[in-house]
Amino acid sequence: MNLEDKIKKLYDYNKRLHVFDAISALTDWDRATGGPKGGIQIKQEIFSYLSGEEYNLLTSNEFGELLKSLEMQKEELNQKDRRLFDLTKRKAEDVRSIPKNEYTEYSSFIAESQEVWEEAKENNDYLMFAPYLKKIIEYNKKFAGYRQKNNMPLYDVLLDDYEEGMTMKDYDKFFETLRKDLVPLIHKILEKGKKTPISWDGEIFDTAKQEELSEEILKIIGFNFDNGMFKASAHPFTTGFDNKDIRLTTRYDEKDLAMSLFSTMHEGGHAIYEQQIADEYRFSMLGGGVSSGIHESQSRTFENEYGKSREFLRFCLPKLKQKFEFLKDVDEEYFYRAYNQAIPSAIRIEADELTYPLHIMIRYELEKEMMNKDIDINTLNIKWREKYKEYLGIDIENDSEGILQDVHWAAGLIGYFPTYALGSAYASQFTEILKKEIDLNKLLENGEFKPILEWHKENIHSYGSLKTPKELLKDVTLEDLNPKYYVDYLINKFSKIYDL
Amino acid sequence: MNLEDKIKKLYDYNKRLHVFDAISALTDWDRATGGPKGGIQIKQEIFSYLSGEEYNLLTSNEFGELLKSLEMQKEELNQKDRRLFDLTKRKAEDVRSIPKNEYTEYSSFIAESQEVWEEAKENNDYLMFAPYLKKIIEYNKKFAGYRQKNNMPLYDVLLDDYEEGMTMKDYDKFFETLRKDLVPLIHKILEKGKKTPISWDGEIFDTAKQEELSEEILKIIGFNFDNGMFKASAHPFTTGFDNKDIRLTTRYDEKDLAMSLFSTMHEGGHAIYEQQIADEYRFSMLGGGVSSGIHESQSRTFENEYGKSREFLRFCLPKLKQKFEFLKDVDEEYFYRAYNQAIPSAIRIEADELTYPLHIMIRYELEKEMMNKDIDINTLNIKWREKYKEYLGIDIENDSEGILQDVHWAAGLIGYFPTYALGSAYASQFTEILKKEIDLNKLLENGEFKPILEWHKENIHSYGSLKTPKELLKDVTLEDLNPKYYVDYLINKFSKIYDL
Repeated sequence: MNLEDKIKKLYDYNKRLHVFDAISALTDWDRATGGPKGGIQIKQEIFSYLSGEEYNLLTSNEFGELLKSLEMQKEELNQKDRRLFDLTKRKAEDVRSIPKNEYTEYSSFIAESQEVWEEAKENNDYLMFAPYLKKIIEYNKKFAGYRQKNNMPLYDVLLDDYEEGMTMKDYDKFFETLRKDLVPLIHKILEKGKKTPISWDGEIFDTAKQEELSEEILKIIGFNFDNGMFKASAHPFTTGFDNKDIRLTTRYDEKDLAMSLFSTMHEGGHAIYEQQIADEYRFSMLGGGVSSGIHESQSRTFENEYGKSREFLRFCLPKLKQKFEFLKDVDEEYFYRAYNQAIPSAIRIEADELTYPLHIMIRYELEKEMMNKDIDINTLNIKWREKYKEYLGIDIENDSEGILQDVHWAAGLIGYFPTYALGSAYASQFTEILKKEIDLNKLLENGEFKPILEWHKENIHSYGSLKTPKELLKDVTLEDLNPKYYVDYLINKFSKIYDL
Repeated sequence: MNLEDKIKKLYDYNKRLHVFDAISALTDWDRATGGPKGGIQIKQEIFSYLSGEEYNLLTSNEFGELLKSLEMQKEELNQKDRRLFDLTKRKAEDVRSIPKNEYTEYSSFIAESQEVWEEAKENNDYLMFAPYLKKIIEYNKKFAGYRQKNNMPLYDVLLDDYEEGMTMKDYDKFFETLRKDLVPLIHKILEKGKKTPISWDGEIFDTAKQEELSEEILKIIGFNFDNGMFKASAHPFTTGFDNKDIRLTTRYDEKDLAMSLFSTMHEGGHAIYEQQIADEYRFSMLGGGVSSGIHESQSRTFENEYGKSREFLRFCLPKLKQKFEFLKDVDEEYFYRAYNQAIPSAIRIEADELTYPLHIMIRYELEKEMMNKDIDINTLNIKWREKYKEYLGIDIENDSEGILQDVHWAAGLIGYFPTYALGSAYASQFTEILKKEIDLNKLLENGEFKPILEWHKENIHSYGSLKTPKELLKDVTLEDLNPKYYVDYLINKFSKIYDL
């Protein structure tokens, strides 16, 4: 086979893997957006079929030979093909490194573990879940061990899975800055800051009207409905088939408009990223957002830097007043402050912009301990409580609202959490540049997203996974990760809001 | 391998094929119920992957060996396993008989043909579509030739595909009865019968209220929402994953409540059939309705014999009046007559209960001619018009509302149409027995479907595909197909309505 044919074969394999992903995404989308209870079993059959076929493909001799042979001619590949080769090889190695029986065993363990977690959370019984967490950490250590190169720390193997190129060393430095600069600010706000009571508390936001509003907002920010779909689900999420069919959901709470408003902005950010990826990467591993962290940077930009900005809220307020009569006397400044309060709370997904990264820092520190030391997992809930007290100044009343709140660990995701905070930092670093090139505030005030989307497309979105997260960040901002922008943004914003 | 292991393997293969079907059904469900335009391409990739994998499985040596070896031990199999073997073998032979390149060629031709048909229909240009129809007939003759046994007529091969055991000889006899008994009745109605003008014509039936009503009715007739889902789509349909997840749609027309009301009843009949199949047949070819004709018998029973009965309409009328104020003075007898008029019309899917089978008869006669003779397909539209004049007494103004109205032929479905009429005949034959065992009219009048569903379950539904259509009919009614019940039912019903 000549090189051209080999490259073609690489793309063919990618297309096949992409079909598996698309079927999986569609099946999960259906489950989350109305598929009946009775359908769970056939869905499990579909997932198990897909993971089996993916495993077979990635571990087949023919595929292995292709990769080996391309490796030898790697220097002859252009940037796009070389990157696709790297991504494909990485995925193959991840799967090939784990013996099939262990992989299967782990998959069913994870399914069980999530069920147990759900029950444990319901019953506020951490000790019920702890043995599962212990075993998940063991599995993750073992699997990371299979893939470990040059004696790198096992946790680094996992961190790299979710954010290519990031290590404990990077994250330690990153979180150190957050701890140093944000914890004192939060404590100051707790002591001196005054709350803005929400004057429309107790009013009912009609769900149908919220839905209209969310759709309106998605249109304003530039989500393309011909290439996507929007629904409601218990937990908002975005899923992608390819740039021509991207789907997102939001969540409605009759008592709290902020829930749907900012969830829609957040998921809208994810979805628009995927929609703006260049067509040439479709049906391959290049055709999706490059990493959890970069993805989160886009969603958090839309949710926080744009969505919760004074300018965009100024633009939105009249629309809200039209739909919700009881808001008619709400003043703009008041509205801005009401939706931008920093109030430490137990639940990560309900956290405000300022306290959010500290929730992540706590999880990062605990993951690090679990992965690096042989600590007692049965008492990890105590450590959880201590850290919440220390960083956020709050007492965790029970484990359901503490260590049991998130599904991630139960689902085997170790090393994923830190990307949530990283995303916000990327966001501020990107926005710093964007602001130099376009008049962001004016555009937000006018609800004029076209030039904003163009900027994101040209600088970030269109590349898909062509560049690594580090390359992408450097190409746009001309420097490596620098949490200063993020910390400055938060200090600046919240000092003003709280008149500190 | 011992027999037990072979049987297990047969079920494993079935499960795999079932997973393909489920993915395909889910993908199509998504397309029809809101999936975005942009998703069409990835869906085509999914379909093409699935059909490739199915082909590979069914033509693999290992699978072939298994069937051969089971064939030799067929006498040792119990009824269930033997039937599954027969169905599986039949499917395998159908696929194996066609060379892969011809199969692929045909698949893409069919895709093209449907596009051309759509355009031809839009432009009322039969000659644009005629060459495609000609080629589809050629393909079907060729493929039927591959599967032809004992020199049976080629059309019989196709008829058997959609209704196991039915031949031209059977259908000729069947349609002869319809022609002899129904055509004169229709002509009499045309001459003497008076119309019942719909007094609420021009009123608007709010779609949201129609939706509520459809859901209410589905609950009343016993559709299980835990094991299913209900939506709207351009063309109502039912699709099935397995008995635990069955989905149906209806269509809303603001000007015509009958559209959603009877579509919902019709699809409800299909859906309840699938939901009531016994669990033991799940994930295998036994786990679906046995044939097009039997399926249609269930949908037509719910739509016509139940849905359009005086008793059920009596039960429904108060509910309708509650929702639609302008119906408040409508009298029961008037309502019954308004929704049970026999008015010959050009469009099959809008036809009433009495004239419907003649639409099918026309299609059957034309299919027969195309398959058996070397007729000029370019002038088939003329024949179509002549038949509509002869049987239904109407002039077809243009081919869009004539020969181009249905997608079936463009989609390569030759031999499928006759099952639509057959289903109604089965329905009457079944209902005759049911009425002897339970007090149908009283139950319908009270909207009490539980005993009715039980009867369907015990006698028909629970068997899935265990019995052939012929066996099923004979076991329940103790005789073979007898169109007398159908014809009597129609003559009796419509003579009364039209005071003949």
